[in-house]
Amino acid sequence: MYKQISSTQNSIVKYILQLQEKSRNRKKEGKFVLEGFRELSLALDGNYTINTILFYPEICSHERVQILLENTKNSPECIEITKDVYQKIAYRGSTEGVLTIVETKVHSLETISFHNKTPLILVAEAPEKPGNIGALLRTADAANVDAVFIANPKTDLYNPNIVRSSVGCVFTTQVAMASTSEIISFLQEKEISIYCAALTASENYHIQNFKNATAIVVGTEATGLSDEWLKNSTQNIIIPMQGKIDSMNVSVAAAIVIFEAKRQRNFES
Amino acid sequence: MYKQISSTQNSIVKYILQLQEKSRNRKKEGKFVLEGFRELSLALDGNYTINTILFYPEICSHERVQILLENTKNSPECIEITKDVYQKIAYRGSTEGVLTIVETKVHSLETISFHNKTPLILVAEAPEKPGNIGALLRTADAANVDAVFIANPKTDLYNPNIVRSSVGCVFTTQVAMASTSEIISFLQEKEISIYCAALTASENYHIQNFKNATAIVVGTEATGLSDEWLKNSTQNIIIPMQGKIDSMNVSVAAAIVIFEAKRQRNFES
Repeated sequence: MYKQISSTQNSIVKYILQLQEKSRNRKKEGKFVLEGFRELSLALDGNYTINTILFYPEICSHERVQILLENTKNSPECIEITKDVYQKIAYRGSTEGVLTIVETKVHSLETISFHNKTPLILVAEAPEKPGNIGALLRTADAANVDAVFIANPKTDLYNPNIVRSSVGCVFTTQVAMASTSEIISFLQEKEISIYCAALTASENYHIQNFKNATAIVVGTEATGLSDEWLKNSTQNIIIPMQGKIDSMNVSVAAAIVIFEAKRQRNFES
Repeated sequence: MYKQISSTQNSIVKYILQLQEKSRNRKKEGKFVLEGFRELSLALDGNYTINTILFYPEICSHERVQILLENTKNSPECIEITKDVYQKIAYRGSTEGVLTIVETKVHSLETISFHNKTPLILVAEAPEKPGNIGALLRTADAANVDAVFIANPKTDLYNPNIVRSSVGCVFTTQVAMASTSEIISFLQEKEISIYCAALTASENYHIQNFKNATAIVVGTEATGLSDEWLKNSTQNIIIPMQGKIDSMNVSVAAAIVIFEAKRQRNFES
């Protein structure tokens, strides 16, 4: 028998709402809320620790919870919830009847390790829209890049909209968050070439050599990259734009350059 | 002096709301609603006809309207509106104080013409999300493709969310909408090679030759391309996915392949 909660006024309900709402609360508690079986499975593969499982048995059966438990390394607390409680805490559009509280990871540069001598890294400076960050993480996963760095982050990584739009790819690539200065120092120290996507750059991306250790750096659609990046780059690069519009979605631009690097590397990991 | 409207019950207010709301109404009337100076400018460049200009003078001055009028080939009716009326009809987040009624164009295959012998065409089958269609049109503009074909369309092109997410790129590339069969016949007749992005394809996209007349065809994220496309393709192609997730955002996938074609063509138009 599992513990049961039927009141939407229960303290754990309030706790979950707080974690969903504010980055500050997630940071303070070191926890975030995760929904969806696929996302959970990717988080477990990525060695995340699930603390609590809440499930609404009419959608998510006891058997399903049992399977989930067998895949966790620890023993999360399981709580059966009513429809009212589920509807109160489930994220818009969630339909799988399960919701978990998961421990965040540390995303410092010190945690980053490379398994080869020519890593391919995607760097995004101060990305604002969760949907764009999610899309960048999806591309990072598809290309199997060695790391994603977020410079001068505007939000934590566990924003529900990032997790959702990344379709769980937030758990599949190692991610570090640090200041632009710290990341530049890190890259220079490791002799990783820095290619900054810029609208005013003089060289086209497709004539660069991305076969060595490479960081591809993208800025925001509104303001591009900071001078600090542009001054410290190995080469500022541009995607030739031949239409009437002079800007590209940041996740699309990143994907074009990252996959050019992959092509040059003949898609070898 | 311009005509003035201060009642949100005015018939033109209702007419605009109907055009914004339903594809059916836009088709019946042959009109759509367009906001934003950049978008208007792109529509005028694309030879669209503006029928009516509504403006709220506290945000959009008479001078601004005058400049707009000078750039139209016809003489649109100008109507001054009050704040109440503007707020009633302006699209979420609009801030420029101007809103126009514009004539739709015909998007049949017969209207398509090519200015070179090796056109590059982007085809999307049954795309559903307006945001994805907008993103595809942005990529099409950036790459200056020769045409975009939408096969088995689920919506008209003038859905407010498509126009908005395309940041006006809906007006910058010639677009045809037709059935999958009609588009396949068109491409075969013109001897344009058909490359279909498929998850089960045997050949990687980056080893193809996209220098000849080429159509890149993408399906939906949920179901991919129909068998009709896959059977009639010159080659089914795949973007190697090396992560944990097996799907990519359709606009990202399209951009990767389109820009590989551009790279092979050395970005020559």
